[in-house]
Amino acid sequence: MSGSSFGKAFQITTFGESHGPAIGVVIQGCPPGLPIDQDLIQKSLDKRKPGDGPASTKRKEPDTPLILSGTFEGKTTGTPIMIMIKNRDAKSSSYEDIASVFRPGHGDYTYHQKFGVRDYRGGGRASARETAARVAAGAVAQLVLDPYQIKIESYTVGLGGIRANIFDAKIIEKNPFRCPDMEAALKMEKKIETIKNQGDSLGGVVEIKAINVPAGIGDPVFDKLDADIAKAMMSIGAVKAVEIGAGIGAAEMTGFENNDQLTQDGFASNHSGGILAGISNGDDIIVRVHVKPIPSILKPQKTLTDTGQPTTISTKGRHDICAIPRINKVCESMLALVLTDHILRQKTNR
Amino acid sequence: MSGSSFGKAFQITTFGESHGPAIGVVIQGCPPGLPIDQDLIQKSLDKRKPGDGPASTKRKEPDTPLILSGTFEGKTTGTPIMIMIKNRDAKSSSYEDIASVFRPGHGDYTYHQKFGVRDYRGGGRASARETAARVAAGAVAQLVLDPYQIKIESYTVGLGGIRANIFDAKIIEKNPFRCPDMEAALKMEKKIETIKNQGDSLGGVVEIKAINVPAGIGDPVFDKLDADIAKAMMSIGAVKAVEIGAGIGAAEMTGFENNDQLTQDGFASNHSGGILAGISNGDDIIVRVHVKPIPSILKPQKTLTDTGQPTTISTKGRHDICAIPRINKVCESMLALVLTDHILRQKTNR
Amino acid sequence: MSGSSFGKAFQITTFGESHGPAIGVVIQGCPPGLPIDQDLIQKSLDKRKPGDGPASTKRKEPDTPLILSGTFEGKTTGTPIMIMIKNRDAKSSSYEDIASVFRPGHGDYTYHQKFGVRDYRGGGRASARETAARVAAGAVAQLVLDPYQIKIESYTVGLGGIRANIFDAKIIEKNPFRCPDMEAALKMEKKIETIKNQGDSLGGVVEIKAINVPAGIGDPVFDKLDADIAKAMMSIGAVKAVEIGAGIGAAEMTGFENNDQLTQDGFASNHSGGILAGISNGDDIIVRVHVKPIPSILKPQKTLTDTGQPTTISTKGRHDICAIPRINKVCESMLALVLTDHILRQKTNR
Amino acid sequence: MSGSSFGKAFQITTFGESHGPAIGVVIQGCPPGLPIDQDLIQKSLDKRKPGDGPASTKRKEPDTPLILSGTFEGKTTGTPIMIMIKNRDAKSSSYEDIASVFRPGHGDYTYHQKFGVRDYRGGGRASARETAARVAAGAVAQLVLDPYQIKIESYTVGLGGIRANIFDAKIIEKNPFRCPDMEAALKMEKKIETIKNQGDSLGGVVEIKAINVPAGIGDPVFDKLDADIAKAMMSIGAVKAVEIGAGIGAAEMTGFENNDQLTQDGFASNHSGGILAGISNGDDIIVRVHVKPIPSILKPQKTLTDTGQPTTISTKGRHDICAIPRINKVCESMLALVLTDHILRQKTNR
Repeated sequence: MSGSSFGKAFQITTFGESHGPAIGVVIQGCPPGLPIDQDLIQKSLDKRKPGDGPASTKRKEPDTPLILSGTFEGKTTGTPIMIMIKNRDAKSSSYEDIASVFRPGHGDYTYHQKFGVRDYRGGGRASARETAARVAAGAVAQLVLDPYQIKIESYTVGLGGIRANIFDAKIIEKNPFRCPDMEAALKMEKKIETIKNQGDSLGGVVEIKAINVPAGIGDPVFDKLDADIAKAMMSIGAVKAVEIGAGIGAAEMTGFENNDQLTQDGFASNHSGGILAGISNGDDIIVRVHVKPIPSILKPQKTLTDTGQPTTISTKGRHDICAIPRINKVCESMLALVLTDHILRQKTNR
Repeated sequence: MSGSSFGKAFQITTFGESHGPAIGVVIQGCPPGLPIDQDLIQKSLDKRKPGDGPASTKRKEPDTPLILSGTFEGKTTGTPIMIMIKNRDAKSSSYEDIASVFRPGHGDYTYHQKFGVRDYRGGGRASARETAARVAAGAVAQLVLDPYQIKIESYTVGLGGIRANIFDAKIIEKNPFRCPDMEAALKMEKKIETIKNQGDSLGGVVEIKAINVPAGIGDPVFDKLDADIAKAMMSIGAVKAVEIGAGIGAAEMTGFENNDQLTQDGFASNHSGGILAGISNGDDIIVRVHVKPIPSILKPQKTLTDTGQPTTISTKGRHDICAIPRINKVCESMLALVLTDHILRQKTNR
Repeated sequence: MSGSSFGKAFQITTFGESHGPAIGVVIQGCPPGLPIDQDLIQKSLDKRKPGDGPASTKRKEPDTPLILSGTFEGKTTGTPIMIMIKNRDAKSSSYEDIASVFRPGHGDYTYHQKFGVRDYRGGGRASARETAARVAAGAVAQLVLDPYQIKIESYTVGLGGIRANIFDAKIIEKNPFRCPDMEAALKMEKKIETIKNQGDSLGGVVEIKAINVPAGIGDPVFDKLDADIAKAMMSIGAVKAVEIGAGIGAAEMTGFENNDQLTQDGFASNHSGGILAGISNGDDIIVRVHVKPIPSILKPQKTLTDTGQPTTISTKGRHDICAIPRINKVCESMLALVLTDHILRQKTNR
Repeated sequence: MSGSSFGKAFQITTFGESHGPAIGVVIQGCPPGLPIDQDLIQKSLDKRKPGDGPASTKRKEPDTPLILSGTFEGKTTGTPIMIMIKNRDAKSSSYEDIASVFRPGHGDYTYHQKFGVRDYRGGGRASARETAARVAAGAVAQLVLDPYQIKIESYTVGLGGIRANIFDAKIIEKNPFRCPDMEAALKMEKKIETIKNQGDSLGGVVEIKAINVPAGIGDPVFDKLDADIAKAMMSIGAVKAVEIGAGIGAAEMTGFENNDQLTQDGFASNHSGGILAGISNGDDIIVRVHVKPIPSILKPQKTLTDTGQPTTISTKGRHDICAIPRINKVCESMLALVLTDHILRQKTNR
């Protein structure tokens, strides 16, 4: 079944395993005539690359995107765009000890249950490495959004239990966590150091925002804009919760408090997160995702072998301590993909 | 575009408006030979009917499901099953005053932006009435789940800010909110009375659980089980947040705390909510949805007419004060639909 | 699986069995604001109704289409349009003798093999009656084609081995076979009488033409316009061959003879049938379908019971002698559906 | 839109242009545990390679298939399989003179109309080169068919107006046209030489047969087995007509002649081509496709430039004189893809 495809009018299909020869994506439905080059994709990929920050893996991938189809003389042609990224820095040997052991918190056990066989090297298909293909596709999607002036950004509003209390846009690029609250960012850094020394890991909360999204996109009653966003976000490996607008807060307000009243200057508030009845209302799209801690930790954990024998495991591979801030770019890309899909879909209504 | 269809192997397509002649659903991919009758569908529909509880609308619909295709001599035949529910108690006249006014918190404005025209009567296609079709389909889906002994239930863990602090299964059926904590249920009742008198409304939190789901279902990397569940839940009108397992709590734990260690007696905990890397692990599936307050309130609100003139609105139709407990059955049905779809999909892997 | 759905941007889903309570269709993706009413659908259905001609069944169905969703104040709203036709004149009793016998040339045996159970009454889901739902949907599709001045018509170019040798448009409506050659039509009539008296049946050839189709529609490399037309036509029960443009004749020409040279007055010929590389070229779309004889015949045939016992069968139900001319309208409708789908799809490229 | 994807349970997505860096395919839904290697794919690709026969192009491509994902230790893993074939022998310069001229019989004009831009080199996306990706996918599909002993073969029953009058299976591999009638094959050879000297080209007719297909596959009423086969075949560039079983001949028989009567030894004939009501009946699947002559010819033809100026064109690139026998393997592959898809789909009914 087509579980590795996403979108209807703008549809991506990703392929590849963490330690196979390559990963990549085929994009269908991209309109013709858009300016595209390797640099554009590269810039997006760089934002998801392991940084020098304290939370990042030491695995280094140049992640050079090769555009192998669908373009001609620097423009999209309307035919499928295939972008491939070769896997280079693959130390499969460091994963051999997990060939027959299920790592807690990972897909090892469930892939084994589903398929009977699995590529255990680095998580195989379940590796976060697959998200590089999504980011490459997101960069192409953004080309469709550009004429609308749609901009998507994300920032970290929680990490290891520490919450951002203020929003200062200028601060986001000035700390390795993309946190809009410098005081919180400093606490996050400290927390990560402590947890790292304990051989443990952390999770966090990312907010993603899209501005200038035209009113009228989204396709009820199932392909609602918020429903597709929820799926897009929850399909990212570590995400365990998705909120739209006021989200969990909405459940504790009264109708009068939560409703966004309409005025001639626009909506008086934005608890809806820019989406009403599954259709954009022209206001900012606001999404929040809650990310679980990286499951690969040094701390020994109880587990089973694939023959059912109890054992303990201590994961020594090169791993991030926290999926943030690398996951932020992935979230932005998934939002770009959903918005692009629905903007194209809306054209069939006119 | 096919935004009113959901699922791939077991696919439903709903149709109908709140005050049109009928609503209903076409189900494709239901295996042949399953015992089906009107009573079975009726029982499910009854659980979503406006009750006599303090939170419910006074609109009464017999909601008799007519099975008009896909069955023969009391069994499914493998061909599309169409189930229709006629709309009877439709007082369109009570909606005429909103024909040209956008109700805050509703889809009026966004449907207008998307389609240019809209059936304003009772919310038209955006009405919660559409969910009756989902419930009918969910009852059919459950027939596929029965041989696996899969059972799905839901209960209310929050309403108007009041949280259930204990889980006593026996209590669920004994209060109008399906709350597993009687003390909390009593507070909820009181709160609803107060809010009702203020012409306002409330939201809440519902937890949905599925037991005996076999390990191995879900179709990464996009049609992950949790991703499809997130979409399913977020496609229900009032839902603003979806959590899987530990959900937002996972983001505040360390990896060691959050990981579910494997033992010969099963997983030592269930923070994953029964899903790892988008595939079921055999443990209980746990989902939580956060429901916004009913937007239709008596309290006057600022809004605009469809020509952009400011006005105020006070919604006098017959409405629930809170989507809970009626939404609970809808959530159960959506979970049944996702599980059925993925159980059938997994058959193609063997 | 979703085998009863057709189209992507303009998608129909049909349901219903020959002798169940009703048949019908749900249409998704129909743009809003189009004028629609029951008469429009009725007129199309009337063209597929058993006529008074010599080739037609005596089963009479009023075939009144009920539009139960997706419209408001006489216009489409952009939401799913459900059209239902009740089955009235269903004499199930006349089919009881075939409950356990497989009729040659019918789907009895294959439905039994596929599903294990089947609704044997009048062919159940495999009945040509299902095509009424397609015709209803085709009438809605035509609303999308109208602004382009796209007109679709069909005529009979062969029946029982008798071929039309001339094309005189005026003649088409003047004979019961929609044959553009009156001399041929008269021979067809005679042939039908003879065959009818022998308790046998006939097949034929229908040509379908669409004019004013804009250049540029079709979605290579699989959803080519001709590929989707071939599927659409072959999905009609009795069709055994589909030709586009010169069709089988193209295989016997040289490249120079077959190529349609381009001139400033347009293409110098139309062997392509208006489709090059799967995309419309602005010329007339020309399709020919070859229809097998009606399999239900009075003449005794050898067959098996569902327990594998040999027996003979002589079908006494009310049946057409030839699917022509009733199938002609179905072919037109399927072409309308394909064109509409691709016209809407092409909007996403701009 | 997803026009470059085919299949639902076993789904392929092809990408690539004739003179871009690479072409290839992503296969979704392939069951895990199947033995797969490069040789297997290579052997299929070799059958579609330009041969040394008189009808073939002189362009030589090694066509080495690289399997870049979805396999581990020589077996499929259930995840997407990406197979890529690099383009090496691409002489783009030989196509520069057609950059602004529409070649008759090609997609140049229609791609231009559809997308506004086009990769003119060697036909770009519309090149027959894309079919190599289908053949690679077909080789993987065959792995699913092997346990059923399903075998697919094709042979040429017409070329340039010369028809095979006898069927001698031994002869097929003994002539460059895969014709089962040696006398006809010799005439075909002569005809090709003559036509080649005239700077012209030829078409032909291919019959494709699948044996051991289990009864019960196909998904009415739209995804009928024959409907999907018709689409699959018509999606191959040069195909202008598709017949199933008796095909066009069925239209000239009576019902009694055409019906395949059932006996305890099986069906008494196979006019149905192994498909009744869109579902396989266990008999051989028989398909015939009619292939137009290669449009690229040396003989000068009238055409237009992309600014509408009249000109003449004489195509000097390296081209086949006839798509047969290379297209035969493509037809076999498409049939393998359809059968595999429906065999997997049928599993969801049990």
